[in-house]
Formats: sequence, structure tokens, C-alpha cells
Amino acid sequence: MSHRSRLGTLVIDCKGDDFAEAMRFWSGALGTEFYPDPDDPRYAVTDRAADEQHLILQKVQHDNRVHLDIETDNKEAERMRIEALGATLVERHPKGFVIMQAPTGQRFCLVDPQRGDFPGDAREHP
Amino acid sequence: MSHRSRLGTLVIDCKGDDFAEAMRFWSGALGTEFYPDPDDPRYAVTDRAADEQHLILQKVQHDNRVHLDIETDNKEAERMRIEALGATLVERHPKGFVIMQAPTGQRFCLVDPQRGDFPGDAREHP
Repeated sequence: MSHRSRLGTLVIDCKGDDFAEAMRFWSGALGTEFYPDPDDPRYAVTDRAADEQHLILQKVQHDNRVHLDIETDNKEAERMRIEALGATLVERHPKGFVIMQAPTGQRFCLVDPQRGDFPGDAREHP
Repeated sequence: MSHRSRLGTLVIDCKGDDFAEAMRFWSGALGTEFYPDPDDPRYAVTDRAADEQHLILQKVQHDNRVHLDIETDNKEAERMRIEALGATLVERHPKGFVIMQAPTGQRFCLVDPQRGDFPGDAREHP
């Protein structure tokens, strides 16, 4: 069975207690208003259009970084495909996303489809 | 005089000598072919459409990371605007971009307009 995947959200990981300050800075810097996710206070979301790159702020315990998500309609099939390319599984997060590490060292996540137009321009993997 | 800025390219910084391997992995993972920039072997570029999020691989000496660019028609005015928001100047790179550090710790770059449709949806700063 085939599955599909594509570049998903760009996640700005922010360590520290002052998440309001992180929201203020990144809203101003990127010209996109970040506001608290009503469903989860660890996130700040935006109202960017479906055809724009999605952005999110995440309150984290690990070091500050930027990471990318890959959105897919089959996370386990995508994990196997990405592992075959050389990445390694770091952790299956309780929230449902799969944390991977690229052979070049960056961490990224496999997530369920995020944008309403999925599959849109996602690639199909036989 | 006003200037404009918006989110630019997402840059995947790859340390190490095997840049061909980095190109191979990220091409497969993101379903977007990265190929060597004919003008500069430290970069690998893609042919993503003007209305898609632009991506680039950069061969670096520092640790692997992902960073974002802010494209602007006035880097010095944008630097001052971003500093007023709380970021600090790290370095003016000889290649022309300005490396900044967010109050939340992530590094990002101010660069000249990258996509042909600039200013497009860029925000104007009086």
C-alpha cells in the first residue's frame, strides 16, 4: 500500500519559562502573530494561509533549535522509508509524533497531516 | 523610509565532508531534488516553485542545525528593527548576509530578497 509525505510545519523550539516573550519576539520578527494554542499551552500557533509555510512555537526542555516536520498519512511506513534512507528513530512521542535523526544530525518529526489540503503536492511512495 | 521583510529560505546546515550524502538523504526525505549550486559548491539548491517554501542545504563548519532566513530589501534597517525586538547581531558574513541570534537562542540570517515575487506578502515596516 502506498503512502504520501511532504514538508510540514517549521517548528521553533524555545526553552525556558518565558514563552510569552518567545511569542512576542517571533511574532514581530516574522510578521506573523503567534498566539497560545487553545488546546495545548506548550504550543503557539498562527493563522497563516493553507498555501503558506506553517510555523509553530513549541515550549521545550531541550536546547533551543528550529526543526522541521514531515507530514504523512502513514507515520510507520514513512519511518521505514526514512530509515532506509539512513535516518534513525529517536523516540515515539506520547503525543503521537515520531522523532527521527537525519544522518547529517538534525532531528525532525513525522506527524499526521497538518494542513487541510493534504495530500496536495505530497509525494507518493509506492 | 520604510522597508519590507518576510520569512525566507529554510536552511539545512550540514557539517562534514560528505555533502553528496547530505544531498542524497534530504532529497529523498523531503521529495525535493537538491543539486549543487553551480555558483557555489558550499550550497545545494532545489527547483521548488516560487510559491513554495524555499529550501537550501549549506555545508558548514559549525554544528548541524536548521535555521531560517528573513529576506528583506534593507538588511541594515531590518537588523535595527530586529535588534529593537531583542535579538543580537552575531556577525556580518563576507557573503553579504547578516547573522542574528534571537532572544530565545536560535540563530537566523537577514538576506537580500531571494524569491522572484518579493515583496509579495512581505510586511512593510515604517
